[in-house]
Amino acid sequence: MRIEILNTGSELLLGTTLNTHGRWFGQQLFDLGLRVQRLTTVPDGDAIRDALAESVQRADVVLVTGGLGPTSDDITREATAEVLGVDLIEDEAAMRSLEAFFARLEKTMAPDNRKQAQVPVGADVLPNGNGTAPGIYVPPRLNGAANCAVFLLPGPPRELYPMFKAEVVPRLRSLGGIEESGERILELKMVGVGESDLHQAVDEPLNQVEGLEVGYCARLAEVDLRLIGKPEAIEKGRALVMARFEEDCFTDDGSELEEVVVRTLAAKGLTLATAESCTGGLISNRLTDVPGASEVFTHGFVTYANEAKVNCLGVSEDDLAAHGAVSEPVVRQMAEGALKESGADIAVAVTGIAGPGGGTDEKPVGTVFLAVASRTGETRVHKRMHLRDRKAFKRTVSQNALDLVRRELRHIS
Amino acid sequence: MRIEILNTGSELLLGTTLNTHGRWFGQQLFDLGLRVQRLTTVPDGDAIRDALAESVQRADVVLVTGGLGPTSDDITREATAEVLGVDLIEDEAAMRSLEAFFARLEKTMAPDNRKQAQVPVGADVLPNGNGTAPGIYVPPRLNGAANCAVFLLPGPPRELYPMFKAEVVPRLRSLGGIEESGERILELKMVGVGESDLHQAVDEPLNQVEGLEVGYCARLAEVDLRLIGKPEAIEKGRALVMARFEEDCFTDDGSELEEVVVRTLAAKGLTLATAESCTGGLISNRLTDVPGASEVFTHGFVTYANEAKVNCLGVSEDDLAAHGAVSEPVVRQMAEGALKESGADIAVAVTGIAGPGGGTDEKPVGTVFLAVASRTGETRVHKRMHLRDRKAFKRTVSQNALDLVRRELRHIS
Repeated sequence: MRIEILNTGSELLLGTTLNTHGRWFGQQLFDLGLRVQRLTTVPDGDAIRDALAESVQRADVVLVTGGLGPTSDDITREATAEVLGVDLIEDEAAMRSLEAFFARLEKTMAPDNRKQAQVPVGADVLPNGNGTAPGIYVPPRLNGAANCAVFLLPGPPRELYPMFKAEVVPRLRSLGGIEESGERILELKMVGVGESDLHQAVDEPLNQVEGLEVGYCARLAEVDLRLIGKPEAIEKGRALVMARFEEDCFTDDGSELEEVVVRTLAAKGLTLATAESCTGGLISNRLTDVPGASEVFTHGFVTYANEAKVNCLGVSEDDLAAHGAVSEPVVRQMAEGALKESGADIAVAVTGIAGPGGGTDEKPVGTVFLAVASRTGETRVHKRMHLRDRKAFKRTVSQNALDLVRRELRHIS
Repeated sequence: MRIEILNTGSELLLGTTLNTHGRWFGQQLFDLGLRVQRLTTVPDGDAIRDALAESVQRADVVLVTGGLGPTSDDITREATAEVLGVDLIEDEAAMRSLEAFFARLEKTMAPDNRKQAQVPVGADVLPNGNGTAPGIYVPPRLNGAANCAVFLLPGPPRELYPMFKAEVVPRLRSLGGIEESGERILELKMVGVGESDLHQAVDEPLNQVEGLEVGYCARLAEVDLRLIGKPEAIEKGRALVMARFEEDCFTDDGSELEEVVVRTLAAKGLTLATAESCTGGLISNRLTDVPGASEVFTHGFVTYANEAKVNCLGVSEDDLAAHGAVSEPVVRQMAEGALKESGADIAVAVTGIAGPGGGTDEKPVGTVFLAVASRTGETRVHKRMHLRDRKAFKRTVSQNALDLVRRELRHIS
């Protein structure tokens, strides 16, 4: 099945908005055994019509996103009707769905929203539980010349993702073009090993496994190794990698590191507290992104100021004066203070210099100390140096911290 | 000047890599007075040749990224030569640049890298100071039929960005197609007003301003209104919008809400503390993404468990039992407790039900209470309801909270 994606929206090409649809659709469609043939991004306006007219000639299915809103630059419905040579009519089901959405929010519907209930004659309306724009499915028979199925979908991820899963996937399956290639992707996500070291160690043996496609993706304090092939080839590849890097591999199921940490804590019946300086709450934010975090995460101390470290965590003022806030004794006292104040089983603490200001000759921007304390073992302290911009620094340190907790949990039953 | 971008790379469509080129090129080219007409992403292989052949027919300039590496799936050079009908030859300057790169790393060049010195006859080699792949510029005269200029550029940002600035920008200027259009973008970012209400109020008058292009982008608890035109038209549009929505507009310079809050606090010499339950540290994380946050942000309390609310913030156990953690008295005590414990000038608190679990009939998932307390005024409490998934809920509540602080700061000199 030849499948193309058409993303509409001037904001995607004016440099104001990052387009994440390519990655997301790629993942979703690969899981269905499909590979995206082309992704086209165009600004609002006539370009939508031109690009859609070309795509329907090349593809069996076109997924169009954006331009379904209530405003004057939202013209995807109109452009599609024009390309397919059909009329638009106000759809009753779509109108009811719009009215229900506003009723749930206890708001009055603006007159401009009415146009969102316009659909090409003969098309299906795809309900939107998370926004005002209903999706639209135009089956191939309505588009005789090209024989191409067209889906019009909302741009915002919180509306697009559930609609794709509930409405698009079943229709793709019923179009019958999904061939079972038998290929799978295995993604082994690692933390604590560098991309070139991993490559050096495993690339040659992996490339000798017949029918195995290998890819590497270096992220911040993480390397994702991608194996594509039939199950037998993938399992050979997995065994090769795990023989060397089992301790560094935190998941093979696409989980984020914070999900692995929350799941492991829950499985062991343990609780965690955090004491953050330079990461400013990013570690607790990541932990609480995981549903069920409230069962394992109790207290987060964002002790940005020195007084906060003293008052909330009992860090010694003398040590702060003698060693500075970014030091071994301070991070140790932060972790142990968080453990004591929270009553949790494990506490992790970080303090560092995110920059751009605040560095010294002795402790340049990028210096960070991490500590993990637990009820059952000795407090472990680590020093690292990361030369990254502020946000990337925070992300990297949060990876280091979550990984320390993950490794600590291996020793606690 | 009609300009298109062609991104090549299977990883961009397999769901493993996020393509950030659209946003970056959009910004760079708009600053030159150019707008991207289309961005096409294709996998490695024959699709590159097909897409390039189409682009050179539509555009005056095509910027191609990726596929210039040493491996067998890097075929952008070959595809370009085929589309343009010219031969590839080994270029001496490109070979010297490759050799110099390996010399700097004190490594031996692999034989595979030789193909990176192959360029179409008559093309310019664009030096790459940060990687092995030289760029290539094919002037329009080499591509007679289409009269289109083609740039082949490396994919990795650290190689692409400096090459674009040093080698591509001057050539775009010398192509003479960069007209100083005199157009500018004004982006008015709003919080506290819905997209359709904004549209209803301003769209008609804005569309009556001659030479003004208007666009709307709805984000989570934020609407960005984009005005494009000559300065005079933009100022007319701005005045129309600000007459109605001055209080809701938090910036016209592209700042994030957290940057506005940190800057305003700094300008007024005030400090802020946060007390977060359902956002789990996202508010403090956003604040500390801003350089200089340490001057205004002192304490963040992530009181996820009830005991944390009691122990760290002095919330009454009786009120927790009587009203529940998601309630008016609890959020009020969280804000006032954070103010007292931290000694800050302002404190903001949130408590809510992020879901998917934890909802009740009386307090369904999505319920949230927010409070802002200050040294100088009464504590204000708000109740909201947001029907969103967990991460979107957290983001929305963090917007609400930062906006409460922003509005509170308007009353404090």
